[in-house]
Amino acid sequence: MKFDYSNLKIKEGAKVNLKDYSTHEDGGLDKNEAKKEIEKNIEDLQVYQELFYADDRHSMLIILQAPDAAGKDGVIRHVMSGINPQGCRVHSFKTPTNNELEHDYLWRHYVSLPQRGMIEIFNRSHYENVLVTKVNPQFILNERIPGYQSVEQIDKDFWDRRYKSINAFEKHLFDNGMVIIKFFLHLSKGEQKERLLARLDEPDKHWKFSSADLDARDQWKEYHKAYEEMLERTSTDHAPWYVIPADHKPFARVAVGDIIIDHFKKLDMRYPQPESDEMLAAARARLLTED
Amino acid sequence: MKFDYSNLKIKEGAKVNLKDYSTHEDGGLDKNEAKKEIEKNIEDLQVYQELFYADDRHSMLIILQAPDAAGKDGVIRHVMSGINPQGCRVHSFKTPTNNELEHDYLWRHYVSLPQRGMIEIFNRSHYENVLVTKVNPQFILNERIPGYQSVEQIDKDFWDRRYKSINAFEKHLFDNGMVIIKFFLHLSKGEQKERLLARLDEPDKHWKFSSADLDARDQWKEYHKAYEEMLERTSTDHAPWYVIPADHKPFARVAVGDIIIDHFKKLDMRYPQPESDEMLAAARARLLTED
Repeated sequence: MKFDYSNLKIKEGAKVNLKDYSTHEDGGLDKNEAKKEIEKNIEDLQVYQELFYADDRHSMLIILQAPDAAGKDGVIRHVMSGINPQGCRVHSFKTPTNNELEHDYLWRHYVSLPQRGMIEIFNRSHYENVLVTKVNPQFILNERIPGYQSVEQIDKDFWDRRYKSINAFEKHLFDNGMVIIKFFLHLSKGEQKERLLARLDEPDKHWKFSSADLDARDQWKEYHKAYEEMLERTSTDHAPWYVIPADHKPFARVAVGDIIIDHFKKLDMRYPQPESDEMLAAARARLLTED
Repeated sequence: MKFDYSNLKIKEGAKVNLKDYSTHEDGGLDKNEAKKEIEKNIEDLQVYQELFYADDRHSMLIILQAPDAAGKDGVIRHVMSGINPQGCRVHSFKTPTNNELEHDYLWRHYVSLPQRGMIEIFNRSHYENVLVTKVNPQFILNERIPGYQSVEQIDKDFWDRRYKSINAFEKHLFDNGMVIIKFFLHLSKGEQKERLLARLDEPDKHWKFSSADLDARDQWKEYHKAYEEMLERTSTDHAPWYVIPADHKPFARVAVGDIIIDHFKKLDMRYPQPESDEMLAAARARLLTED
């Protein structure tokens, strides 16, 4: 019995209050049941991915956004390992480089989009442009946009245009055959604390720890306001956001896999037409009669 | 008991006659034993890949060259599925585009090289520039290299320079931390015939069939001469070629995995140093005392 994911999907135009969304859902699965589901999903994803690659008409963009330690890397490792790496890529976006800042903020994401037949995962994405910069608008000044020389000039209109740009960008991609699925991993502040302490307590995890994570944690409320506005303004029928309860890692991984599979199921995919029967017969004769 | 792979490695400067290399070795493994080895290798590769990514000082370039139907795609799918896609990418190189032909022949490969911490698989590679173009030198004219307006001008010196360029390119990459492993999948002409016929006989495989494969098959001898020269001229201690017997797919997959793991084992990898103990203690205090 599958969990009903329709409640996790943000409907186009809906108001969003993250308090209405659970962080600690486990889908009624214990650890072992979740593990089995994850394995089954990998098998299904392998089959869909191969057909998707052969069909070569759609491409798929999977977006992951989340607070630190919410489990983005683990979702990628557990849900997508097992997929043929020939058909699946991951792009992790960090602080923009100087070269990237010479372009508009969508450019570095545009040049990383998947080809037809390919699945691309954006580990962080163009949505950082309405998240980290929304909470820390001084970063916008690094983009050197004409007319924006001080933080005070960055007004509601500025953010409205960003949401509209992003929606237009994704609509264009959808119109040209891209499947876009967006996941927000919804973690509680308490569970983040536990996970950050674990990074500090386990020597093998020390290297993953950065003090910057604590600074972002201090801005928890501001980030959640930005997440809510992002979800409200950019969840669309053709590029929906899903709010994934992330306090239980196994369930989060099951949910992401299940939802990707649901999107594959809705596609009309087929193996491409081979060359003509005559050509195939001629080729067979050529092989069988060679010396 | 592991198979001894040292005989499959082409020693720097050695003469190569492909007839001396078996195509149908099965390593003494039946299908089930090979399957278990492949699964064990995936587990080992997962562990090495994670450390490789964290260590973030080396990068790894895995090159696959082979005749059609030798099993390159299957090697990628079976050996590398299971690796975290966040740390492993595949680049499949096709006929150069017009834009790529505006550059020297290494350019499109250069821009696809792995970052530190990443594994990149080249499915076909810069070696096509001494393979398909060696057998079909008229393609060189598309590159519009000054001084080469006709096929007659493409002489031994021309190819000598290509081998030297490729060796210099790989030496530079090695000097800067890249691990380079090159696999030639060695298929017999008879086994290729069986596999091409299978593509024609199984409707699900029709779409993989192209008549161009038969044209390359007609040039079997010329290609093998080019493969031999490539192996002789470009196998080096720091970027060796391995000739993998490819008539038995399971063994080919075991061998590629085993050899990659051997290369990982030789690296001195470690988790990066965390921030200082004082910083970690301060971070712990900050988390534990927040309201």
